[in-house]
Amino acid sequence: MGKFITLEGIEGVGKTSNLRYIKELLEKSGHDCVLTREPGGTNLGEALRGLLLSHADENMSADSELLMMFAARAEHLAKVILPALANRQTVLCDRFTEATYAYQGGGRLLDVDKISELEDWVQGELRPDLTIILDAPVEIGRARAGNRSAPDRIEKEHDDFFQRVRSAYIELAEHYPHRICLVDASVGLAEVQKGIYEKLIDYGIVDPDVIAGN
Amino acid sequence: MGKFITLEGIEGVGKTSNLRYIKELLEKSGHDCVLTREPGGTNLGEALRGLLLSHADENMSADSELLMMFAARAEHLAKVILPALANRQTVLCDRFTEATYAYQGGGRLLDVDKISELEDWVQGELRPDLTIILDAPVEIGRARAGNRSAPDRIEKEHDDFFQRVRSAYIELAEHYPHRICLVDASVGLAEVQKGIYEKLIDYGIVDPDVIAGN
Repeated sequence: MGKFITLEGIEGVGKTSNLRYIKELLEKSGHDCVLTREPGGTNLGEALRGLLLSHADENMSADSELLMMFAARAEHLAKVILPALANRQTVLCDRFTEATYAYQGGGRLLDVDKISELEDWVQGELRPDLTIILDAPVEIGRARAGNRSAPDRIEKEHDDFFQRVRSAYIELAEHYPHRICLVDASVGLAEVQKGIYEKLIDYGIVDPDVIAGN
Repeated sequence: MGKFITLEGIEGVGKTSNLRYIKELLEKSGHDCVLTREPGGTNLGEALRGLLLSHADENMSADSELLMMFAARAEHLAKVILPALANRQTVLCDRFTEATYAYQGGGRLLDVDKISELEDWVQGELRPDLTIILDAPVEIGRARAGNRSAPDRIEKEHDDFFQRVRSAYIELAEHYPHRICLVDASVGLAEVQKGIYEKLIDYGIVDPDVIAGN
């Protein structure tokens, strides 16, 4: 089986540019890399994503929302992730189940035990080999995401929401240090990349000698 | 809480006309009756039903299919069934989870334990107070449904499929006799209705004295 690596973090922490950096490092280190993302990644997943968004203001039941997210994930696993891993490819995924814990569990306060039951139902024993969480204070993420105005009532609520999301991510890294780590994303891009590079070495994903040889 | 009654059976056993009959009996017996159906019953449920059907030929993963069915069911419960029961109304539903056991478990041979886990996840302790399964041999259902030509290879497969669905329904009635019963639907409509009437009395749903008084 290939390696399964996921990248997580709140808005504005630099996920997109660092995904490209990780993919380059993996390829330099000899990985045959498949880049994918959630929610989505399949035709059905994108259609479910559309339903989730278009029905967002209809007060969809929390259970339905979670089941639809995991329905999209089940399809993503069956059609993209598991075949690639079985083919000894490395899967690099922009968000995965840890985002469900952070956004639905932490942010929206849905029952974490119910998330965990669906995780087991859909994934069995499968967990990412490494999850890198880009971590930065919510204000920094928000500033980078381009929202620099003084917070009004709604934006204040959003701040609370993203604080809970960030806290949930930090807790995940504390609970599962063997497979989830934080990288400080409050610093400059070169330093963030250095942090990512060191984690990929620490967790045995890339070999510095191989990269140096290129 | 009001009573929750579901009607089940393969194609051609007369579900539609007998639903109307049951609703009349319930109303004569003093029930305030809400008639609904699965899959569907809500806007989101109908949208999911559309996705399930439009993607049916794309070989959707079995797990995704089950999760989407239960996502529609969770919404149906939250928006229609549970509010009506809490309002002391009687809910009469055209198909429910027993159809998932029969069609996906029996017909499509999906893992029954995985269905059971989702049933618990979505419904908790809630089960229909009474499920009436209209039972008839597959040939009779097919003949009534209007397909009288000699079976070709595909139709033969369909026969095997519907045999498995019927067997699964029969097993459900054997396993849960306190809440699931069979009514012989191979006989004439008047006799089927007599069978249904007796079951509604046996299971304490309608009171014959109240109906006689009307």
